[in-house]
Amino acid sequence: MDSATQSSVDTVVRDIAERARAAAYRLAVLPTTVKNAALEAVAQRLETERDALIAANEKDLTAGEQNGLSSALLDRLRLTPERIAGMADGVRQVAALPDPVGEEISRDIRPNGIDLRKVRVPIGVIGIIYESRPNVTIDCAVLCLKSGNASILRGGREAFHSNTALAALLARSLDETGVPAGAVQLIPTVDRAALNTLLRCDDRVDCIIPRGGESLIRFVAENARMPVIKHYEGVCCIYVDAAADRDMAVSIAVSAKASRPAVCNAAENLFIAEAALESHLPAIAQALAEKGVELRADEPVRRTLESHGIACKPATEEDYHTEYLDLILAIKTVADVNEAIAAVNTYGSRHSDAIVTADEAAARRFLAEVDSATVYWNASTRFTDGFEFGLGAEIGISTDKLHARGPMGLHELTIYKYLIYGTGQVK
Amino acid sequence: MDSATQSSVDTVVRDIAERARAAAYRLAVLPTTVKNAALEAVAQRLETERDALIAANEKDLTAGEQNGLSSALLDRLRLTPERIAGMADGVRQVAALPDPVGEEISRDIRPNGIDLRKVRVPIGVIGIIYESRPNVTIDCAVLCLKSGNASILRGGREAFHSNTALAALLARSLDETGVPAGAVQLIPTVDRAALNTLLRCDDRVDCIIPRGGESLIRFVAENARMPVIKHYEGVCCIYVDAAADRDMAVSIAVSAKASRPAVCNAAENLFIAEAALESHLPAIAQALAEKGVELRADEPVRRTLESHGIACKPATEEDYHTEYLDLILAIKTVADVNEAIAAVNTYGSRHSDAIVTADEAAARRFLAEVDSATVYWNASTRFTDGFEFGLGAEIGISTDKLHARGPMGLHELTIYKYLIYGTGQVK
Repeated sequence: MDSATQSSVDTVVRDIAERARAAAYRLAVLPTTVKNAALEAVAQRLETERDALIAANEKDLTAGEQNGLSSALLDRLRLTPERIAGMADGVRQVAALPDPVGEEISRDIRPNGIDLRKVRVPIGVIGIIYESRPNVTIDCAVLCLKSGNASILRGGREAFHSNTALAALLARSLDETGVPAGAVQLIPTVDRAALNTLLRCDDRVDCIIPRGGESLIRFVAENARMPVIKHYEGVCCIYVDAAADRDMAVSIAVSAKASRPAVCNAAENLFIAEAALESHLPAIAQALAEKGVELRADEPVRRTLESHGIACKPATEEDYHTEYLDLILAIKTVADVNEAIAAVNTYGSRHSDAIVTADEAAARRFLAEVDSATVYWNASTRFTDGFEFGLGAEIGISTDKLHARGPMGLHELTIYKYLIYGTGQVK
Repeated sequence: MDSATQSSVDTVVRDIAERARAAAYRLAVLPTTVKNAALEAVAQRLETERDALIAANEKDLTAGEQNGLSSALLDRLRLTPERIAGMADGVRQVAALPDPVGEEISRDIRPNGIDLRKVRVPIGVIGIIYESRPNVTIDCAVLCLKSGNASILRGGREAFHSNTALAALLARSLDETGVPAGAVQLIPTVDRAALNTLLRCDDRVDCIIPRGGESLIRFVAENARMPVIKHYEGVCCIYVDAAADRDMAVSIAVSAKASRPAVCNAAENLFIAEAALESHLPAIAQALAEKGVELRADEPVRRTLESHGIACKPATEEDYHTEYLDLILAIKTVADVNEAIAAVNTYGSRHSDAIVTADEAAARRFLAEVDSATVYWNASTRFTDGFEFGLGAEIGISTDKLHARGPMGLHELTIYKYLIYGTGQVK
């Protein structure tokens, strides 16, 4: 890119950020009724403009086919009448959620008489960097709008036409309901230079949420000057203790690994107590094999499974760090709950991890010492999501340790400020 | 620096980060009694090892004089018997605060029977980058320890000998009370290469808190790969409305500007309503001038003050963005509360801003629309600190908009995790 083009991309992105900043001040005090009316307008337009959206999406699908996208990626990219109806439903569900803005979190009259109130407010301007699925455009825009934040959306190259059509629909819906222009904006280019500029707008953008593959998230984390809430995919672990109920261990392992292997709360590692190798592992492995799961394991596991006629490949150290998102499971033997905790903290990605045991003391140690956003005792890791947690909707699942951990809903898109009511106090 | 030296600095820093990570897992479950015993040991050693600390500090003071440090900087650097006694008191105050770790923030039995608990936990490993004052070494170490976090301290070149002595004292105190080695560590070099390595240890360090001048904070924000909680100094603003009580406006302006001009919650800008120029400004300006405050202002203010015989220099646009930390105040005329809100959001640093008015509607708009961590109605901005807010102690004052805003105490050094108690639920 020549420097004139770079400078023009810079200007476009900085203007978008400036409009978002101006809109954020107005959004912070916008009545809930206005925000909800805008969301209803978005839902209605998704229904009435469905065919135009599908036509825009066709352009992306055609280009994707020509560029050799995998059938899985093409499927993620595709908008169908059912999926668009689902998006409209999702928008109405967000409209029905309580508005978090304005909540009084605490109040304290200080000894000098000042009345100190901590109240919930929007974060401000949120940049969202995402990849192929176009429904993310709507999900993120409506969650940010409902929580009073201005959003700057930067979607992937593959979904460019779909996202452009959705952004235009959002802009018309907001305009007709009196929401400030600039509340939701899509960066009109997928040029990497535009992303670089956005990541440097720390004077105007309060926070970046990247959603997508690890290389995208790493790029954003390394280059953003403003706070980033990362949503790495999950290397989730299941530990089967010697004191586990065997049938429960089987059903939790099958659910966690095989119910939907391509999602971030699916398990990638199984740690098995040495004392459970003979008693528990064959039944678990048999059930997984019947679901088509390829097993990779260390030597004690392989020896055990071999004696039961169950196929198992050798695992490398790398396997235990890998997010397969596929029907593959890495299995490792551990001495006890202490080794299991260390293994989870070493190989897991701090997302969701489970212990299966009837030993309460072991469970309490695991819950306390595993350093993950969500730690389970006797349940499948697949429950980590905003709907299951009662948040109503989610903008993602944070694997960071600041601001928000785990599923992020409307509350997690807010922060607080202190309001002080005085009567002339000075110091 | 040659590449061999760089590689050895890399190794030293990465080893420190690795030890901190290991310690953090143990600190997260350390009983409150053990943490408090360690803090008492620190307080006692500050008292019994006072003379050795003063001797180490002398080396820094001598070097500082040779290097031409200003008398203000030398004063910040100096450890005196009284200051060391104050540090010991501060440590005991932190020991007396409730332990935030383990608090159940919320609990919800979901429709499928899983028992979802949100509990407060330490963040993990916190890196603190700071400049000259050696007491920061103790303050940060004890706040992190009480909140269950491992800390990595990187102090300034000027305080190197003082910080090294304090870190050794901390290590001995922790060791004798059974706190894991690695809970508090000082980076043993002030080489910039070590800082660069630390800022890239995002696999081991969860969060960086920079404290110091703007150039240090900007460097950290631009180069850190992990989340940063910034503590920029404050460009705080006072708006005097036409409906302000004049005497209250005078005392708040004098407190905010002149009671301690070198701190971050001191005011740097005064915005005055056009309708208050004649009625309020002369009394305010006269009181400030009597405190030795230099006034810089726009033309309407200068004309008004001139007619009352009060000296005032012209202000540049730059003046309104400047944190003087000195007896200088920039004054600007605004039409009304709307223009005042826009001026605060443009020129302020989102730290602490105040409106003085008897008009409740104007005050409520200002409180709602000023986008700062702390917004005051009829009180001095000087109250923004952890002690005044009842937090007991503070590690700094966040001007960021994620995780924590305003004074950060023990609670703000924690995050939450979700613990799920199941009975075999799968999905």
